[in-house]
Amino acid sequence: MQPPTAAMLLIGNELLSGKIQDQNLVVLARDLRSLGVRLARVVMVEDDVETIAREVRGLSSTHDWLFTSGGVGPTHDDVTLEAVARAFEVKIERRPELESLLRGIYGERCTEGHLRMADLPEGAELVSEMDHDPDIVEVQGRKLPWPATLVKNVFVLPGIPQIFQMKLSAVRARLRKLGARAFVSHAVFTDMDEGHLKPLLDAVVERFPDIAVGSYPTWAGASYRTKLTFDGLDVTRVMAAADAFCATLPEGEPKRRE
Amino acid sequence: MQPPTAAMLLIGNELLSGKIQDQNLVVLARDLRSLGVRLARVVMVEDDVETIAREVRGLSSTHDWLFTSGGVGPTHDDVTLEAVARAFEVKIERRPELESLLRGIYGERCTEGHLRMADLPEGAELVSEMDHDPDIVEVQGRKLPWPATLVKNVFVLPGIPQIFQMKLSAVRARLRKLGARAFVSHAVFTDMDEGHLKPLLDAVVERFPDIAVGSYPTWAGASYRTKLTFDGLDVTRVMAAADAFCATLPEGEPKRRE
Repeated sequence: MQPPTAAMLLIGNELLSGKIQDQNLVVLARDLRSLGVRLARVVMVEDDVETIAREVRGLSSTHDWLFTSGGVGPTHDDVTLEAVARAFEVKIERRPELESLLRGIYGERCTEGHLRMADLPEGAELVSEMDHDPDIVEVQGRKLPWPATLVKNVFVLPGIPQIFQMKLSAVRARLRKLGARAFVSHAVFTDMDEGHLKPLLDAVVERFPDIAVGSYPTWAGASYRTKLTFDGLDVTRVMAAADAFCATLPEGEPKRRE
Repeated sequence: MQPPTAAMLLIGNELLSGKIQDQNLVVLARDLRSLGVRLARVVMVEDDVETIAREVRGLSSTHDWLFTSGGVGPTHDDVTLEAVARAFEVKIERRPELESLLRGIYGERCTEGHLRMADLPEGAELVSEMDHDPDIVEVQGRKLPWPATLVKNVFVLPGIPQIFQMKLSAVRARLRKLGARAFVSHAVFTDMDEGHLKPLLDAVVERFPDIAVGSYPTWAGASYRTKLTFDGLDVTRVMAAADAFCATLPEGEPKRRE
Protein backbone atom coordinates (compact mmCIF):
# COMPACT_ATOMS: atom_id res chain seq x y z
CA MET A 1 0.00 0.00 0.00
CA GLN A 2 1.37 3.39 -0.98
CA PRO A 3 1.61 5.95 1.85
CA PRO A 4 -0.62 9.06 1.61
CA THR A 5 1.08 12.04 -0.07
CA ALA A 6 1.32 15.69 0.90
CA ALA A 7 2.49 18.97 -0.59
CA MET A 8 3.38 22.22 1.13
CA LEU A 9 2.86 25.74 -0.17
CA LEU A 10 5.04 28.42 1.45
CA ILE A 11 3.70 31.93 0.90
CA GLY A 12 5.39 35.29 1.34
CA ASN A 13 7.54 37.92 -0.36
CA GLU A 14 9.70 37.99 2.79
CA LEU A 15 10.78 34.38 2.16
CA LEU A 16 11.68 34.94 -1.51
CA SER A 17 13.58 38.14 -0.78
CA GLY A 18 15.63 36.41 1.92
CA LYS A 19 14.44 38.73 4.69
CA ILE A 20 13.20 35.72 6.63
CA GLN A 21 14.32 32.09 6.51
CA ASP A 22 11.43 29.64 6.59
CA GLN A 23 11.34 27.51 9.75
CA ASN A 24 8.06 25.65 9.14
CA LEU A 25 8.97 23.22 6.37
CA VAL A 26 11.40 21.11 8.37
CA VAL A 27 8.97 20.87 11.31
CA LEU A 28 6.07 19.77 9.13
CA ALA A 29 8.31 17.39 7.16
CA ARG A 30 9.38 15.56 10.33
CA ASP A 31 5.83 15.37 11.66
CA LEU A 32 4.49 13.99 8.38
CA ARG A 33 7.29 11.44 8.28
CA SER A 34 6.39 10.16 11.74
CA LEU A 35 2.74 9.99 10.69
CA GLY A 36 3.56 7.90 7.60
CA VAL A 37 2.69 10.68 5.14
CA ARG A 38 5.09 11.28 2.23
CA LEU A 39 5.83 14.97 1.65
CA ALA A 40 6.44 14.91 -2.10
CA ARG A 41 6.61 18.53 -3.18
CA VAL A 42 7.09 22.02 -1.76
CA VAL A 43 6.42 25.26 -3.62
CA MET A 44 7.19 28.81 -2.48
CA VAL A 45 5.43 31.78 -4.06
CA GLU A 46 4.90 35.51 -3.54
CA ASP A 47 1.83 37.16 -1.94
CA ASP A 48 -0.17 37.13 -5.16
CA VAL A 49 -3.75 35.88 -4.97
CA GLU A 50 -3.93 34.43 -8.50
CA THR A 51 -0.59 32.62 -8.17
CA ILE A 52 -1.58 31.13 -4.80
CA ALA A 53 -5.03 30.09 -6.07
CA ARG A 54 -3.47 28.31 -9.05
CA GLU A 55 -1.01 26.45 -6.79
CA VAL A 56 -3.72 25.47 -4.29
CA ARG A 57 -5.87 24.09 -7.09
CA GLY A 58 -2.99 22.11 -8.59
CA LEU A 59 -1.30 20.81 -5.45
CA SER A 60 -4.54 19.86 -3.65
CA SER A 61 -5.73 17.82 -6.62
CA THR A 62 -2.47 15.90 -7.05
CA HIS A 63 -1.78 15.14 -3.37
CA ASP A 64 -3.84 13.71 -0.53
CA TRP A 65 -3.10 16.72 1.67
CA LEU A 66 -1.87 20.26 1.13
CA PHE A 67 -0.45 22.48 3.86
CA THR A 68 -0.11 26.21 3.33
CA SER A 69 2.09 28.42 5.51
CA GLY A 70 1.74 32.20 5.66
CA GLY A 71 -0.52 35.01 4.50
CA VAL A 72 -3.40 34.58 6.97
CA GLY A 73 -3.21 37.88 8.88
CA PRO A 74 -5.47 40.91 8.35
CA THR A 75 -3.32 43.16 6.11
CA HIS A 76 -3.23 43.76 2.34
CA ASP A 77 -0.43 41.21 1.82
CA ASP A 78 -2.41 38.41 3.54
CA VAL A 79 -4.30 36.85 0.66
CA THR A 80 -4.07 33.11 1.30
CA LEU A 81 -7.67 32.54 2.43
CA GLU A 82 -9.03 34.57 -0.47
CA ALA A 83 -6.85 32.48 -2.80
CA VAL A 84 -8.07 29.19 -1.28
CA ALA A 85 -11.67 30.36 -1.74
CA ARG A 86 -10.91 31.26 -5.34
CA ALA A 87 -9.20 27.90 -5.94
CA PHE A 88 -12.33 26.02 -4.86
CA GLU A 89 -14.77 28.59 -6.28
CA VAL A 90 -16.45 29.27 -2.94
CA LYS A 91 -17.19 32.56 -1.20
CA ILE A 92 -15.58 34.01 1.92
CA GLU A 93 -17.94 34.16 4.89
CA ARG A 94 -17.61 35.64 8.35
CA ARG A 95 -17.69 32.94 11.03
CA PRO A 96 -19.74 34.09 14.05
CA GLU A 97 -17.80 31.86 16.46
CA LEU A 98 -14.50 33.47 15.37
CA GLU A 99 -15.99 36.96 15.38
CA SER A 100 -17.11 36.61 19.01
CA LEU A 101 -13.69 35.22 19.90
CA LEU A 102 -11.97 38.26 18.32
CA ARG A 103 -14.36 40.69 20.01
CA GLY A 104 -13.58 38.97 23.30
CA ILE A 105 -9.84 39.42 22.74
CA TYR A 106 -9.82 43.02 21.48
CA GLY A 107 -12.88 44.40 23.30
CA GLU A 108 -13.65 48.00 22.42
CA ARG A 109 -10.44 48.31 20.40
CA CYS A 110 -11.69 45.67 17.94
CA THR A 111 -11.68 47.04 14.37
CA GLU A 112 -12.82 45.75 10.99
CA GLY A 113 -9.11 44.98 10.47
CA HIS A 114 -9.18 42.52 13.37
CA LEU A 115 -12.49 41.01 12.28
CA ARG A 116 -11.03 40.18 8.87
CA MET A 117 -9.42 37.24 10.67
CA ALA A 118 -12.91 35.75 11.19
CA ASP A 119 -13.41 35.50 7.42
CA LEU A 120 -12.96 31.97 6.06
CA PRO A 121 -13.82 30.17 2.80
CA GLU A 122 -17.32 28.63 2.85
CA GLY A 123 -17.27 25.08 4.16
CA ALA A 124 -14.02 25.54 6.10
CA GLU A 125 -13.69 23.13 9.00
CA LEU A 126 -12.18 24.23 12.30
CA VAL A 127 -9.96 21.41 13.51
CA SER A 128 -8.93 21.48 17.15
CA GLU A 129 -6.60 19.09 18.90
CA MET A 130 -9.44 17.38 20.77
CA ASP A 131 -11.80 17.48 17.80
CA HIS A 132 -14.34 19.12 20.04
CA ASP A 133 -14.53 22.61 21.54
CA PRO A 134 -13.66 24.56 18.40
CA ASP A 135 -13.20 27.80 20.33
CA ILE A 136 -10.20 27.50 22.57
CA VAL A 137 -7.44 24.91 22.55
CA GLU A 138 -4.75 24.87 25.17
CA VAL A 139 -1.44 23.62 23.83
CA GLN A 140 1.66 23.35 25.98
CA GLY A 141 0.11 25.57 28.62
CA ARG A 142 -0.65 28.34 26.15
CA LYS A 143 -4.16 29.25 25.01
CA LEU A 144 -4.47 28.84 21.27
CA PRO A 145 -7.16 31.33 20.29
CA TRP A 146 -8.49 29.37 17.38
CA PRO A 147 -8.04 25.99 15.78
CA ALA A 148 -6.43 25.02 12.48
CA THR A 149 -8.44 25.79 9.36
CA LEU A 150 -9.13 22.91 6.97
CA VAL A 151 -10.70 23.63 3.57
CA LYS A 152 -11.39 20.34 1.78
CA ASN A 153 -7.92 18.69 1.96
CA VAL A 154 -6.01 21.96 2.56
CA PHE A 155 -4.75 22.91 6.01
CA VAL A 156 -4.32 26.69 5.99
CA LEU A 157 -1.65 27.50 8.57
CA PRO A 158 -0.01 30.76 9.68
CA GLY A 159 3.59 31.68 8.84
CA ILE A 160 4.76 32.69 12.33
CA PRO A 161 6.72 29.60 13.45
CA GLN A 162 5.45 29.56 17.06
CA ILE A 163 1.80 29.65 15.97
CA PHE A 164 2.43 27.24 13.08
CA GLN A 165 3.83 24.70 15.52
CA MET A 166 0.98 25.07 17.99
CA LYS A 167 -1.53 24.41 15.23
CA LEU A 168 0.35 21.28 14.21
CA SER A 169 -1.05 19.57 17.31
CA ALA A 170 -4.50 19.72 15.75
CA VAL A 171 -3.10 18.56 12.40
CA ARG A 172 -1.37 15.58 14.01
CA ALA A 173 -4.53 14.55 15.85
CA ARG A 174 -6.44 14.62 12.58
CA LEU A 175 -3.87 12.73 10.50
CA ARG A 176 -3.24 10.14 13.19
CA LYS A 177 -6.83 9.00 12.72
CA LEU A 178 -5.90 7.82 9.23
CA GLY A 179 -3.72 5.17 10.83
CA ALA A 180 -0.94 5.38 8.21
CA ARG A 181 2.20 3.40 8.93
CA ALA A 182 5.19 5.51 10.05
CA PHE A 183 8.39 5.53 8.01
CA VAL A 184 11.43 3.76 9.46
CA SER A 185 14.92 5.18 8.92
CA HIS A 186 18.35 3.74 9.71
CA ALA A 187 21.69 5.50 9.22
CA VAL A 188 25.19 4.17 8.55
CA PHE A 189 28.27 6.42 8.90
CA THR A 190 31.53 5.74 7.05
CA ASP A 191 34.88 7.31 6.23
CA MET A 192 34.67 6.22 2.60
CA ASP A 193 33.95 8.77 -0.13
CA GLU A 194 31.04 8.57 -2.57
CA GLY A 195 33.28 7.64 -5.48
CA HIS A 196 34.30 4.45 -3.70
CA LEU A 197 30.86 3.79 -2.24
CA LYS A 198 29.04 4.05 -5.57
CA PRO A 199 29.32 0.38 -6.71
CA LEU A 200 28.35 -0.88 -3.22
CA LEU A 201 25.34 1.44 -3.14
CA ASP A 202 24.28 0.48 -6.66
CA ALA A 203 24.23 -3.17 -5.53
CA VAL A 204 22.02 -2.61 -2.49
CA VAL A 205 19.69 -0.27 -4.41
CA GLU A 206 19.18 -2.97 -7.02
CA ARG A 207 18.59 -5.71 -4.43
CA PHE A 208 16.16 -3.69 -2.26
CA PRO A 209 13.89 -1.74 -4.61
CA ASP A 210 11.41 -1.06 -1.76
CA ILE A 211 14.05 0.76 0.32
CA ALA A 212 15.05 4.39 -0.37
CA VAL A 213 18.83 4.63 -0.03
CA GLY A 214 20.36 8.08 0.49
CA SER A 215 24.03 9.11 0.41
CA TYR A 216 25.13 12.38 2.03
CA PRO A 217 28.78 13.49 2.00
CA THR A 218 29.96 15.89 4.67
CA TRP A 219 32.21 18.85 4.33
CA ALA A 220 35.24 19.57 6.53
CA GLY A 221 34.94 19.03 10.27
CA ALA A 222 32.57 16.06 10.60
CA SER A 223 33.46 12.84 12.45
CA TYR A 224 32.65 10.80 9.32
CA ARG A 225 32.87 11.29 5.58
CA THR A 226 29.59 9.97 4.20
CA LYS A 227 26.24 9.21 5.82
CA LEU A 228 24.06 6.54 4.21
CA THR A 229 20.35 6.32 5.04
CA PHE A 230 17.94 3.42 4.53
CA ASP A 231 14.24 4.33 4.61
CA GLY A 232 11.09 2.28 4.21
CA LEU A 233 7.80 1.26 5.79
CA ASP A 234 8.96 -2.18 6.98
CA VAL A 235 11.60 -2.23 9.71
CA THR A 236 12.74 -5.76 8.80
CA ARG A 237 13.44 -4.76 5.20
CA VAL A 238 15.14 -1.52 6.25
CA MET A 239 17.51 -3.38 8.57
CA ALA A 240 18.10 -6.15 6.02
CA ALA A 241 19.17 -3.57 3.43
CA ALA A 242 21.47 -1.79 5.88
CA ASP A 243 22.98 -5.13 7.00
CA ALA A 244 23.51 -6.27 3.41
CA PHE A 245 25.25 -2.98 2.60
CA CYS A 246 27.46 -3.06 5.72
CA ALA A 247 28.55 -6.63 4.89
CA THR A 248 30.14 -5.29 1.67
CA LEU A 249 32.22 -2.61 3.44
CA PRO A 250 35.94 -3.18 4.09
CA GLU A 251 37.46 -4.05 7.49
CA GLY A 252 36.92 -1.37 10.16
CA GLU A 253 33.79 0.03 8.48
CA PRO A 254 31.17 1.30 9.17
CA LYS A 255 32.21 3.78 11.83
CA ARG A 256 28.77 3.86 13.39
CA ARG A 257 25.12 2.89 12.86
CA GLU A 258 22.03 4.39 14.41
CA MET B 1 11.98 48.33 -16.63
CA GLN B 2 11.08 45.07 -14.91
CA PRO B 3 13.94 43.37 -13.01
CA PRO B 4 15.16 39.98 -14.29
CA THR B 5 13.42 37.01 -12.65
CA ALA B 6 14.79 33.81 -11.16
CA ALA B 7 13.49 30.49 -9.85
CA MET B 8 15.19 27.97 -7.58
CA LEU B 9 14.82 24.20 -7.65
CA LEU B 10 15.80 22.41 -4.43
CA ILE B 11 16.43 18.72 -4.95
CA GLY B 12 16.67 15.88 -2.44
CA ASN B 13 14.68 13.29 -0.49
CA GLU B 14 16.58 14.38 2.63
CA LEU B 15 14.97 17.84 2.44
CA LEU B 16 11.42 16.53 2.02
CA SER B 17 11.80 13.98 4.80
CA GLY B 18 13.06 16.65 7.20
CA LYS B 19 16.42 14.93 7.75
CA ILE B 20 18.17 18.10 6.62
CA GLN B 21 17.00 21.72 6.66
CA ASP B 22 17.88 23.60 3.50
CA GLN B 23 20.40 26.42 4.06
CA ASN B 24 20.93 27.50 0.45
CA LEU B 25 17.68 29.26 -0.41
CA VAL B 26 18.10 32.17 1.99
CA VAL B 27 21.72 32.73 0.86
CA LEU B 28 20.79 32.77 -2.82
CA ALA B 29 17.70 34.91 -2.15
CA ARG B 30 19.79 37.62 -0.47
CA ASP B 31 22.44 37.56 -3.19
CA LEU B 32 19.84 37.84 -5.96
CA ARG B 33 18.16 40.70 -4.13
CA SER B 34 21.43 42.64 -3.97
CA LEU B 35 21.99 41.94 -7.67
CA GLY B 36 18.56 43.29 -8.61
CA VAL B 37 17.18 39.87 -9.63
CA ARG B 38 13.67 38.97 -8.40
CA LEU B 39 13.44 35.42 -7.04
CA ALA B 40 9.82 34.65 -7.91
CA ARG B 41 9.38 30.94 -7.26
CA VAL B 42 11.02 28.04 -5.42
CA VAL B 43 10.16 24.37 -5.90
CA MET B 44 11.44 21.40 -3.88
CA VAL B 45 11.26 17.87 -5.31
CA GLU B 46 12.56 14.37 -4.64
CA ASP B 47 15.54 12.68 -6.37
CA ASP B 48 13.51 11.59 -9.38
CA VAL B 49 14.98 12.24 -12.80
CA GLU B 50 11.66 12.70 -14.65
CA THR B 51 10.26 15.07 -12.01
CA ILE B 52 13.44 17.16 -12.00
CA ALA B 53 13.59 17.27 -15.81
CA ARG B 54 9.98 18.48 -15.99
CA GLU B 55 10.66 21.22 -13.43
CA VAL B 56 13.87 22.34 -15.14
CA ARG B 57 12.06 22.61 -18.47
CA GLY B 58 9.18 24.57 -16.94
CA LEU B 59 11.07 26.89 -14.60
CA SER B 60 13.87 27.71 -17.05
CA SER B 61 11.39 28.71 -19.75
CA THR B 62 9.32 30.98 -17.46
CA HIS B 63 12.19 32.74 -15.66
CA ASP B 64 15.36 34.49 -16.80
CA TRP B 65 17.50 32.29 -14.57
CA LEU B 66 17.07 28.98 -12.77
CA PHE B 67 19.28 27.79 -9.93
CA THR B 68 19.28 24.14 -8.88
CA SER B 69 20.65 22.95 -5.55
CA GLY B 70 21.55 19.33 -4.85
CA GLY B 71 21.93 15.98 -6.60
CA VAL B 72 25.27 16.55 -8.35
CA GLY B 73 27.45 13.91 -6.64
CA PRO B 74 28.42 10.52 -8.10
CA THR B 75 25.88 8.16 -6.46
CA HIS B 76 22.58 6.65 -7.64
CA ASP B 77 20.52 9.42 -5.96
CA ASP B 78 22.44 12.19 -7.79
CA VAL B 79 20.39 12.64 -10.95
CA THR B 80 20.26 16.41 -11.46
CA LEU B 81 22.68 16.64 -14.38
CA GLU B 82 21.00 13.76 -16.18
CA ALA B 83 17.66 15.52 -15.61
CA VAL B 84 18.99 18.84 -16.97
CA ALA B 85 20.30 17.02 -20.06
CA ARG B 86 16.90 15.39 -20.51
CA ALA B 87 15.10 18.72 -20.05
CA PHE B 88 17.08 20.27 -22.91
CA GLU B 89 17.27 17.06 -24.97
CA VAL B 90 21.05 16.97 -25.05
CA LYS B 91 23.47 14.16 -24.22
CA ILE B 92 25.80 13.83 -21.26
CA GLU B 93 29.48 14.07 -22.21
CA ARG B 94 32.67 13.59 -20.24
CA ARG B 95 34.64 16.82 -20.00
CA PRO B 96 38.37 16.16 -20.41
CA GLU B 97 39.37 19.22 -18.33
CA LEU B 98 37.27 17.94 -15.39
CA GLU B 99 38.47 14.37 -15.84
CA SER B 100 42.11 15.45 -15.57
CA LEU B 101 41.23 17.55 -12.54
CA LEU B 102 39.63 14.55 -10.82
CA ARG B 103 42.54 12.27 -11.72
CA GLY B 104 44.84 14.88 -10.22
CA ILE B 105 42.85 14.91 -6.98
CA TYR B 106 42.32 11.17 -6.51
CA GLY B 107 45.47 9.82 -8.23
CA GLU B 108 45.60 6.04 -8.31
CA ARG B 109 42.48 5.76 -6.12
CA CYS B 110 40.36 7.42 -8.83
CA THR B 111 37.42 5.22 -9.83
CA GLU B 112 34.67 5.40 -12.44
CA GLY B 113 32.54 6.62 -9.51
CA HIS B 114 34.73 9.68 -9.11
CA LEU B 115 34.91 10.29 -12.85
CA ARG B 116 31.13 10.47 -13.05
CA MET B 117 31.56 13.99 -11.68
CA ALA B 118 33.25 14.96 -14.97
CA ASP B 119 30.04 14.16 -16.89
CA LEU B 120 28.06 17.27 -17.90
CA PRO B 121 25.22 18.01 -20.33
CA GLU B 122 26.48 18.92 -23.80
CA GLY B 123 27.05 22.64 -24.17
CA ALA B 124 27.49 23.22 -20.43
CA GLU B 125 29.53 26.30 -19.66
CA LEU B 126 32.02 26.33 -16.80
CA VAL B 127 31.70 29.69 -15.08
CA SER B 128 34.53 30.72 -12.78
CA GLU B 129 34.74 33.83 -10.68
CA MET B 130 37.28 35.48 -12.92
CA ASP B 131 35.64 34.26 -16.11
CA HIS B 132 38.97 32.87 -17.16
CA ASP B 133 40.97 29.89 -15.89
CA PRO B 134 38.14 27.35 -15.84
CA ASP B 135 40.22 24.82 -13.90
CA ILE B 136 40.90 26.16 -10.44
CA VAL B 137 39.30 29.06 -8.63
CA GLU B 138 40.52 30.21 -5.28
CA VAL B 139 37.71 31.56 -3.11
CA GLN B 140 38.29 32.87 0.39
CA GLY B 141 41.68 31.19 0.57
CA ARG B 142 40.25 27.79 -0.34
CA LYS B 143 40.88 26.09 -3.67
CA LEU B 144 37.60 25.47 -5.44
CA PRO B 145 38.25 22.42 -7.59
CA TRP B 146 35.85 23.34 -10.32
CA PRO B 147 33.68 26.22 -11.36
CA ALA B 148 29.90 26.57 -11.40
CA THR B 149 28.09 24.71 -14.17
CA LEU B 150 25.77 26.74 -16.40
CA VAL B 151 23.53 24.93 -18.89
CA LYS B 152 21.68 27.52 -21.00
CA ASN B 153 20.11 29.70 -18.26
CA VAL B 154 20.36 27.05 -15.51
CA PHE B 155 23.08 27.22 -12.85
CA VAL B 156 23.50 23.66 -11.52
CA LEU B 157 24.81 23.99 -7.96
CA PRO B 158 25.65 21.41 -5.27
CA GLY B 159 23.53 20.93 -2.15
CA ILE B 160 26.31 21.04 0.46
CA PRO B 161 25.99 24.59 1.85
CA GLN B 162 29.73 25.33 2.05
CA ILE B 163 30.30 24.37 -1.60
CA PHE B 164 27.07 26.04 -2.72
CA GLN B 165 28.25 29.31 -1.19
CA MET B 166 31.71 29.10 -2.72
CA LYS B 167 30.18 28.64 -6.16
CA LEU B 168 27.98 31.68 -5.65
CA SER B 169 31.06 33.86 -6.18
CA ALA B 170 31.13 32.75 -9.79
CA VAL B 171 27.37 33.23 -10.08
CA ARG B 172 27.59 36.76 -8.69
CA ALA B 173 30.39 37.68 -11.07
CA ARG B 174 28.28 36.49 -13.99
CA LEU B 175 25.05 38.19 -12.94
CA ARG B 176 26.77 41.45 -12.03
CA LYS B 177 27.65 41.82 -15.71
CA LEU B 178 23.96 42.22 -16.49
CA GLY B 179 24.05 45.52 -14.60
CA ALA B 180 20.59 45.11 -13.05
CA ARG B 181 19.58 47.71 -10.49
CA ALA B 182 19.68 46.47 -6.87
CA PHE B 183 16.50 46.46 -4.77
CA VAL B 184 16.24 49.01 -1.95
CA SER B 185 14.52 48.10 1.31
CA HIS B 186 13.54 50.23 4.30
CA ALA B 187 11.99 48.96 7.54
CA VAL B 188 9.71 50.64 10.09
CA PHE B 189 9.09 49.09 13.52
CA THR B 190 5.96 49.81 15.55
CA ASP B 191 4.08 48.66 18.65
CA MET B 192 0.74 48.74 16.83
CA ASP B 193 -0.96 45.50 15.80
CA GLU B 194 -1.96 44.60 12.24
CA GLY B 195 -5.66 45.12 12.92
CA HIS B 196 -5.01 48.79 13.70
CA LEU B 197 -2.37 49.22 11.00
CA LYS B 198 -4.53 47.83 8.20
CA PRO B 199 -6.27 51.09 7.09
CA LEU B 200 -2.95 53.01 7.22
CA LEU B 201 -1.24 50.32 5.15
CA ASP B 202 -4.08 50.19 2.63
CA ALA B 203 -3.66 53.95 2.12
CA VAL B 204 0.09 53.80 1.42
CA VAL B 205 -0.27 50.69 -0.79
CA GLU B 206 -2.82 52.54 -2.92
CA ARG B 207 -0.72 55.69 -3.15
CA PHE B 208 2.58 53.92 -3.99
CA PRO B 209 1.76 51.08 -6.41
CA ASP B 210 5.44 50.75 -7.39
CA ILE B 211 6.50 49.99 -3.80
CA ALA B 212 6.05 46.53 -2.25
CA VAL B 213 4.80 47.00 1.32
CA GLY B 214 5.18 44.09 3.74
CA SER B 215 3.73 43.69 7.24
CA TYR B 216 5.26 41.17 9.67
CA PRO B 217 3.86 40.69 13.17
CA THR B 218 6.14 39.28 15.85
CA TRP B 219 5.38 36.72 18.49
CA ALA B 220 6.21 37.08 22.20
CA GLY B 221 9.59 38.50 23.19
CA ALA B 222 10.37 41.03 20.44
CA SER B 223 11.15 44.70 21.10
CA TYR B 224 8.35 45.74 18.69
CA ARG B 225 4.99 44.37 17.61
CA THR B 226 4.93 44.73 13.83
CA LYS B 227 7.65 45.32 11.26
CA LEU B 228 6.70 47.11 8.03
CA THR B 229 8.95 46.92 4.98
CA PHE B 230 9.04 49.17 1.92
CA ASP B 231 10.81 47.71 -1.12
CA GLY B 232 11.46 49.05 -4.59
CA LEU B 233 14.07 49.87 -7.20
CA ASP B 234 14.09 53.65 -6.60
CA VAL B 235 15.41 54.81 -3.23
CA THR B 236 13.54 58.13 -3.45
CA ARG B 237 10.19 56.38 -3.93
CA VAL B 238 10.94 53.83 -1.18
CA MET B 239 11.72 56.58 1.33
CA ALA B 240 8.74 58.68 0.20
CA ALA B 241 6.39 55.72 0.82
CA ALA B 242 7.91 55.04 4.26
CA ASP B 243 7.74 58.74 5.17
CA ALA B 244 4.12 59.01 4.02
CA PHE B 245 3.20 55.96 6.09
CA CYS B 246 5.04 57.19 9.21
CA ALA B 247 3.26 60.54 8.97
CA THR B 248 -0.06 58.73 9.52
CA LEU B 249 1.08 56.97 12.71
CA PRO B 250 0.00 58.29 16.14
CA GLU B 251 2.26 60.23 18.54
CA GLY B 252 5.30 58.26 19.74
CA GLU B 253 5.37 55.99 16.67
CA PRO B 254 7.30 54.51 14.92
CA LYS B 255 9.63 52.97 17.48
CA ARG B 256 12.48 52.75 15.01
CA ARG B 257 13.38 52.96 11.30
CA GLU B 258 16.31 51.41 9.51
